[in-house]
Amino acid sequence: MPQYSPPLRDMQFVMHEVLKVTDELKPIAKYADADVDTINAILEEGGKFASEVILPLNVSGDEEGCKLDPVTHAVTTPKGFKEAYKKYVEGGWPALSGDPEFGGQGLPLVVNQCFYEMLNSANQAWTMYPGLTHGAHAALHSHGTDEQKKTYLHKMTSGEWTGTMCLTEPHCGTDLGLMRTKAEPQPDGSYKITGNKIFISAGEHDMAGNIIHLVLARVTDAPAGIKGVSLFIVPKFLVNADGTLGERNGIYCGGLEHKMGIHGNATAQIVIDGAIGTMVGQPNKGMQGMFVMMNAARLGVGNQSLGLTEVAYQNALAYAKDRIQMRSLSGPKAKDKPADPIIVHPDVRKMLLTAKAYAEGGRALAIYCTVLLDKEHYHPDEKVRKDSGEILSLLTPIVKAFLTDNGHISTNACMQVFGGHGFIKEWGMEQFVRDNRINMIYEGTNTIQSLDLLARKVLGNNGATLKKFGKLIGALVAEEGVNEKMAEFINPLAYLADQMTKFTTELGFKGFQNADEVGAAAVDYLRVAGHLVFGYFWARMAQVALQEIAAGNTDSFYLAKLQTARFYFAKLFPETATLMRTARSGSKVLMDTDAALA
Amino acid sequence: MPQYSPPLRDMQFVMHEVLKVTDELKPIAKYADADVDTINAILEEGGKFASEVILPLNVSGDEEGCKLDPVTHAVTTPKGFKEAYKKYVEGGWPALSGDPEFGGQGLPLVVNQCFYEMLNSANQAWTMYPGLTHGAHAALHSHGTDEQKKTYLHKMTSGEWTGTMCLTEPHCGTDLGLMRTKAEPQPDGSYKITGNKIFISAGEHDMAGNIIHLVLARVTDAPAGIKGVSLFIVPKFLVNADGTLGERNGIYCGGLEHKMGIHGNATAQIVIDGAIGTMVGQPNKGMQGMFVMMNAARLGVGNQSLGLTEVAYQNALAYAKDRIQMRSLSGPKAKDKPADPIIVHPDVRKMLLTAKAYAEGGRALAIYCTVLLDKEHYHPDEKVRKDSGEILSLLTPIVKAFLTDNGHISTNACMQVFGGHGFIKEWGMEQFVRDNRINMIYEGTNTIQSLDLLARKVLGNNGATLKKFGKLIGALVAEEGVNEKMAEFINPLAYLADQMTKFTTELGFKGFQNADEVGAAAVDYLRVAGHLVFGYFWARMAQVALQEIAAGNTDSFYLAKLQTARFYFAKLFPETATLMRTARSGSKVLMDTDAALA
Repeated sequence: MPQYSPPLRDMQFVMHEVLKVTDELKPIAKYADADVDTINAILEEGGKFASEVILPLNVSGDEEGCKLDPVTHAVTTPKGFKEAYKKYVEGGWPALSGDPEFGGQGLPLVVNQCFYEMLNSANQAWTMYPGLTHGAHAALHSHGTDEQKKTYLHKMTSGEWTGTMCLTEPHCGTDLGLMRTKAEPQPDGSYKITGNKIFISAGEHDMAGNIIHLVLARVTDAPAGIKGVSLFIVPKFLVNADGTLGERNGIYCGGLEHKMGIHGNATAQIVIDGAIGTMVGQPNKGMQGMFVMMNAARLGVGNQSLGLTEVAYQNALAYAKDRIQMRSLSGPKAKDKPADPIIVHPDVRKMLLTAKAYAEGGRALAIYCTVLLDKEHYHPDEKVRKDSGEILSLLTPIVKAFLTDNGHISTNACMQVFGGHGFIKEWGMEQFVRDNRINMIYEGTNTIQSLDLLARKVLGNNGATLKKFGKLIGALVAEEGVNEKMAEFINPLAYLADQMTKFTTELGFKGFQNADEVGAAAVDYLRVAGHLVFGYFWARMAQVALQEIAAGNTDSFYLAKLQTARFYFAKLFPETATLMRTARSGSKVLMDTDAALA
Repeated sequence: MPQYSPPLRDMQFVMHEVLKVTDELKPIAKYADADVDTINAILEEGGKFASEVILPLNVSGDEEGCKLDPVTHAVTTPKGFKEAYKKYVEGGWPALSGDPEFGGQGLPLVVNQCFYEMLNSANQAWTMYPGLTHGAHAALHSHGTDEQKKTYLHKMTSGEWTGTMCLTEPHCGTDLGLMRTKAEPQPDGSYKITGNKIFISAGEHDMAGNIIHLVLARVTDAPAGIKGVSLFIVPKFLVNADGTLGERNGIYCGGLEHKMGIHGNATAQIVIDGAIGTMVGQPNKGMQGMFVMMNAARLGVGNQSLGLTEVAYQNALAYAKDRIQMRSLSGPKAKDKPADPIIVHPDVRKMLLTAKAYAEGGRALAIYCTVLLDKEHYHPDEKVRKDSGEILSLLTPIVKAFLTDNGHISTNACMQVFGGHGFIKEWGMEQFVRDNRINMIYEGTNTIQSLDLLARKVLGNNGATLKKFGKLIGALVAEEGVNEKMAEFINPLAYLADQMTKFTTELGFKGFQNADEVGAAAVDYLRVAGHLVFGYFWARMAQVALQEIAAGNTDSFYLAKLQTARFYFAKLFPETATLMRTARSGSKVLMDTDAALA
């Protein structure tokens, strides 16, 4: 059974020593009280909740899965899930970063971010039930009417009710313009909705009193394609004027998917049979609210893989210290034992450090993004709001795709450390691999993320946003360029940043002549951009570590950070050499393949 | 439910047009009758057997798994496995390449290789039951006494009995020197064996009349470590002098592992409780026979991933042509449909071609190795025997590790083509990923393979064997270096071959000073070597294709081959740029990490 120790020290390092989040958020009046001690104390408790209440349900939830009663359409979640959710609600955890107007605690988003990283480490399948609620909440908060907010947001903030995103249909996942679910206007202003949705995470369960489905559908006579799609609230139980639950609505679970992983989460086929819904936002503008949910979900999915990377690393590290097998190539190390612990082997270290470097780099990026999100919405300075929003939009597909691909690499590496035992369910390592695998697919496949990054976020404004992020790198290079101790980090970073500018311009020209050039290069481009961003944060983390060491701080945490930074730049960052080469090799070798793919 | 169409045309291309295997084997008297038509006809039937009898049991076998009766210790395999095995035996399939002295059909090994590739595509879990028998058979054939051969080999050749390899114990997998299983000499020359083995594939089942376990154990008072390990035959049922089955021996299944994949194969904990065994080969020289099994198994494991890569590719290709979603970036292609088939998207093509290029490159290498194995054992010219054996020993860890890592990349890419549907069990794609995952671990993890390659097979003789393989590349470069049409293949290959020589020398020097340098570089080195070998075979395949096209052959097979070769050199081969850089970055960043890995 996997163990988990919340990485509080590393979170504190990123939040307070590297990014100085409380300083960053100080100009936002509502965060004036959010000090370092408060944040740390909450996360310490949050870590206990994750490791003591949620973690023990991970393996059993995977084994047991969810059960659908075909007559009542009720879904039973694995043993203990419901009780843990009750504790989650009673502890006030759903409301951490919620708007106080609707009962939230009004803490900066970074608190919820770090708390959810820990929940994801403990149990991704369980965490998706409350996790999806945050996206639905955000969509209603930004696009709902006052009445809708009043009706739903208090109970979604408290966690009494959960939320879903009902987008996908059997014939349309990526291509929502093909959607068929219909919404007929009713005389009272509501809509009668009919259709079939699939792959609805947390789509039905026994953990909350109501489920607030946010459903994309097409109003009668709406224009074809994506421009005819509207967003609706379709609650499982209708809500009376006094806030009590009314009739059961015509939206139910028609089947549960049998999946590779996240068995503890109910992935529901949702049948909508004349259900009553109310529209969120304007007719045919459903994608606006949807994108609020989707952007939240994309950051959330990156956070899922961050959590899995961390927990897989911790368990592989413990195993590598404990398991003895063979002698070190450079001579016996544990002479009192019949063999050395496998951590003496260079490649075992490489597998462990891969996961560690990806976890810690991912944590820095994810926390940075949460600060941007707060600044985008609440910073008093309009330019800061605008810049924060732009940079966040650039980084969102990187968080989603780079962190989930890194999670794939890392969970597989950590499983490999266990040898044959990694393949056995008992140890829990293979579950991390299976659970992580969906993260590369849902909320927009990683290919879709790469097109979003290169075509929309980068080339869409001629690289203007990329240049804004590039300025941050430029400032760091200017600041540390003459510091010899930083050279091993700054030099490759500065080199890649230069290359990236040329590379992007080149792809822009090629893409202008042939759009398939963009599609051919995008996945490679996203990973290069991911390393550029990770390289920046790793250099900043190394900078802080070097400063502390120079100041005489003997906490081995800083030496550890420096060692991991060195590893990252020596063994992971050079992936960019191949990626730029393959991206530059263009689209012809992909597209002139009709005979090969006949 | 996945489909499968045996890739007979591609097998024929590799066997007869590229490698000309019947010409190569002509000097071996016993293969004088093995002509092209015979080989093709047998494989055509073999393909039918795999796709019609074995494939339909793949998904159901995964769902059902194996069951152990804790009282009788009997294991029941999934529904249909036993009946399919009966057909396999009745059809004479186990004996294809078996020695006629023991009832075999005496066909070249390449026939069995291609047949097993197809079985692995159809169902890896089922195929492991007969598959393990081949390794045990080979060990007995090379190291058994005449009496042992007489007693066991006829029925193992016919498939009436199956075999296993009992190596691993709970505390020793890689490090067999730690083994504890004991063998006490008995007055009649037999041994009484006691111990616990784990992870024994096909270790107990209901498909054959007897199971011939080949067990590593330590004779009383044997020297410590690997030099005190002997090999024993421990049959499930003792065999009477007349060949009939005698008493049930004290070797039974104490438990079945719950695994990530290959659910249809019984991975048994084997309790050996005073079982009667006879020694194979000399006392304390058990590793000799073990390595005969192990080398066969390593080639066999590579072949498992080759099979999975091929079947995953076929299904992803069909889905990519069928599934419509979004328009092509360069303008609508299927204007009569509401969206284009996803095969119009460059990255979908990249994922498909990755699997195709790895499957076809792997097939060429695997078939080449089988010819080497036949030449090593049976060629009349001693020098050919010696050279063949040496090159095969160099290529074996590459087949095992490179093909299984490529299988991981490919099955994951093909699953990704399906989007969310890839994560759902119903489509069968995620099973290929799970089944393939063990191939990177068992029969020596891929890290162990890389150390075997770099430390033993390359540096162990100062690169002499590598140079022998390099001469083959040199000959191709000399032959085609001035052919402009071959330049896109020959140039990168020749460049890498040059680099490889320097790179190897450099690692030799560094490793001489510090053995951890070898351990730090080995995994990267193996993948570079893998691409060098694949590059060679892809260049040879392109050469044949270009010759056919130049000669006016309009079969689109040749154009397809050329397109896939171009893809391989443009998109996969450049991985070597990063690998050489990371390998060169040395061991210090891995080993000076005690603080980071505290």
